[in-house]
Amino acid sequence: MTLTTDFGEGSPYVAAMKGVLLSANPSLRLIDLGHAIPPQDVRHAAFFLAGCLPYFPPGTIHVIVVDPGVGTQRALLHIEAGGHQLLAPDNGCWTLATTRLTAASERGASVPSVRRLTEPRFWRHPVSATFHGRDILAPVAAYLSLGGDPRDLGSPVSEWVRYNLPDPILESHRLAGEVVFVDSFGNLLTNIPGQAVLALASVPVQVLVATRTVTRVVRTYGEAIRGTPVALVSSDGLFEVAVVEGNAARELDAVVGTPVMVSVLPSEQGV
Amino acid sequence: MTLTTDFGEGSPYVAAMKGVLLSANPSLRLIDLGHAIPPQDVRHAAFFLAGCLPYFPPGTIHVIVVDPGVGTQRALLHIEAGGHQLLAPDNGCWTLATTRLTAASERGASVPSVRRLTEPRFWRHPVSATFHGRDILAPVAAYLSLGGDPRDLGSPVSEWVRYNLPDPILESHRLAGEVVFVDSFGNLLTNIPGQAVLALASVPVQVLVATRTVTRVVRTYGEAIRGTPVALVSSDGLFEVAVVEGNAARELDAVVGTPVMVSVLPSEQGV
Amino acid sequence: MTLTTDFGEGSPYVAAMKGVLLSANPSLRLIDLGHAIPPQDVRHAAFFLAGCLPYFPPGTIHVIVVDPGVGTQRALLHIEAGGHQLLAPDNGCWTLATTRLTAASERGASVPSVRRLTEPRFWRHPVSATFHGRDILAPVAAYLSLGGDPRDLGSPVSEWVRYNLPDPILESHRLAGEVVFVDSFGNLLTNIPGQAVLALASVPVQVLVATRTVTRVVRTYGEAIRGTPVALVSSDGLFEVAVVEGNAARELDAVVGTPVMVSVLPSEQGV
Repeated sequence: MTLTTDFGEGSPYVAAMKGVLLSANPSLRLIDLGHAIPPQDVRHAAFFLAGCLPYFPPGTIHVIVVDPGVGTQRALLHIEAGGHQLLAPDNGCWTLATTRLTAASERGASVPSVRRLTEPRFWRHPVSATFHGRDILAPVAAYLSLGGDPRDLGSPVSEWVRYNLPDPILESHRLAGEVVFVDSFGNLLTNIPGQAVLALASVPVQVLVATRTVTRVVRTYGEAIRGTPVALVSSDGLFEVAVVEGNAARELDAVVGTPVMVSVLPSEQGV
Repeated sequence: MTLTTDFGEGSPYVAAMKGVLLSANPSLRLIDLGHAIPPQDVRHAAFFLAGCLPYFPPGTIHVIVVDPGVGTQRALLHIEAGGHQLLAPDNGCWTLATTRLTAASERGASVPSVRRLTEPRFWRHPVSATFHGRDILAPVAAYLSLGGDPRDLGSPVSEWVRYNLPDPILESHRLAGEVVFVDSFGNLLTNIPGQAVLALASVPVQVLVATRTVTRVVRTYGEAIRGTPVALVSSDGLFEVAVVEGNAARELDAVVGTPVMVSVLPSEQGV
Repeated sequence: MTLTTDFGEGSPYVAAMKGVLLSANPSLRLIDLGHAIPPQDVRHAAFFLAGCLPYFPPGTIHVIVVDPGVGTQRALLHIEAGGHQLLAPDNGCWTLATTRLTAASERGASVPSVRRLTEPRFWRHPVSATFHGRDILAPVAAYLSLGGDPRDLGSPVSEWVRYNLPDPILESHRLAGEVVFVDSFGNLLTNIPGQAVLALASVPVQVLVATRTVTRVVRTYGEAIRGTPVALVSSDGLFEVAVVEGNAARELDAVVGTPVMVSVLPSEQGV
């Protein structure tokens, strides 16, 4: 079972969930994916989960607690996709990941199977208004880890909140997108497919991050000297901007949403 | 076995303890509770542990290293409470947690059973003067995890350092307390029992954090719009001040010790 | 199996590696050593690993990803030392640790046995240019964890990048070195052996960190009052400068490379 939260490291909340899980299933094996999702940042969580869940084996249960709507009428969901089970709030944080899980899976449906958690008999009582990770998701996850049937947890639903990456503009002479994720190195991941940039590889292009020029298009960081802003295809196939052994977000003053543009140059110019 | 330290993530100290533990008991299952307790912050550790240890199953061994007195004459202790075993320095970091463990337990004594670790034959030698987590607590914990008898480790003691939350002032028209913990979201946990505030629910109250007014009393964060300072009952039953999808510590300029007051207003006023 | 990276906590990269490892070997037990090595900081990683790997039992597999040269011609290595197996880039990050591992080992060679990973059949395909931790090291580590023969992975090599601590100057009246590691507490670890300082214990000495005077030489932090800059022998036997319950790096304005000097004083002076 994996755990992903925005609870941070200095608070007892992750540990409390681990306690509830192990109390219900002492032989459970817990894998921390990350607890440093920025607080309430559903978009960050969506990209994070899409970048790691597909590498886990089918059969894994993933518990996800990034939940700005805790205690309100937002639903808590059980999701089956590509042989994985997810427990998460209905805020879109999981949909990028399940799109990849169903695409990668050879078996099963191409859409996730989703239920709303409505059966309080699987929960911890009293249920607090502000910590459903501990009081609902953890006991439900423990139930599933013991072989419990997801159909017991609640009824199927056909509507849920989706988070999609913004669509880039892909034209023959211009690719326009934006930064969709800043990783721990300060590398800027964009919504422009790496393949679209590679298709322009034979012609000189200009890469702009807002108004800042990226010096070179490379295959990997080490192809340029330290401090050079470079563009490349990320390990997940996205167009990425980095600074060699530096922090592109800081040095190019970029954040999620900053526009990124690749344009074909007249042939006498070039990068 | 759980591990809680103030060692941070960039230093090799947590990893060294894991190595000592696994060298002595290769099949040991280690659960990280948190290693981001602020350095030497016994009070933070006390609140952290009280917020998570009670959720673990009886039989769990908890190793706690927040130890500003390492190498001095302060004792290292083995504690049994509510069926749990703790290993911790004698600085009070564990007493809030064991108060909850013994209160929650149906079996056993209402006070913890405490021993001072005095038997060097269970330690790693030479014992350094500055890293008793690695040289004393880890090998002793491994011994316990293999079924070792706590009575071998040293003699019972009846005195130890206690950490208690400061007492709030609870009057019929005024509840006065202070911030006792700031969590990773910047939420302010106070020493005022949530029940005491709920008892005032039918009358208009004013909530102050130092001199800053908290706009609304709510049941959960999502009941007010983003950026609103709200007061509520925390998931552990304490009166809490938060800013919806914001950081109350930063936005209300509050730290541990900042006064918090709830006062009944004359009936024509109100929150 | 242990994992050490500079991937940070907010990115999906550590989690992706865990997924690849568990997909290949579902019963694998993963131990996080630390993922907060500063980005691309090979020197920090070297000291970190030397401070923890020797405490693990022989037979452990250690996966290390601090890899500024990812995707370039730098080699990826399999190392056997003191009964441990390491997988790491050829940038020196592992050599301080294996020096300690071979020194501590009673069995086996005093030099590590090193192979270059050259057999793509053990890798994940397509191999990205920027994430060899996921695409090469994780699947190779899983293969080893299942009992795979290291000789299948590639041919032995006899040259590799070494990282050594800078040599201190050790004279009868003067020990001159520098800060080689700043830990999470801000304590300054130096390249001066603690023994060399202890040998001067009977005479008055002056300790300087750059131009700042360290007030006292002590055995452990708690021997001086809060806020005092003190010098002592670290838990790994190195000369260390700390501020009692404070942050020496910040308060003495020191970083890795800052000069540290211990000099014998004329007898009428003294610390």
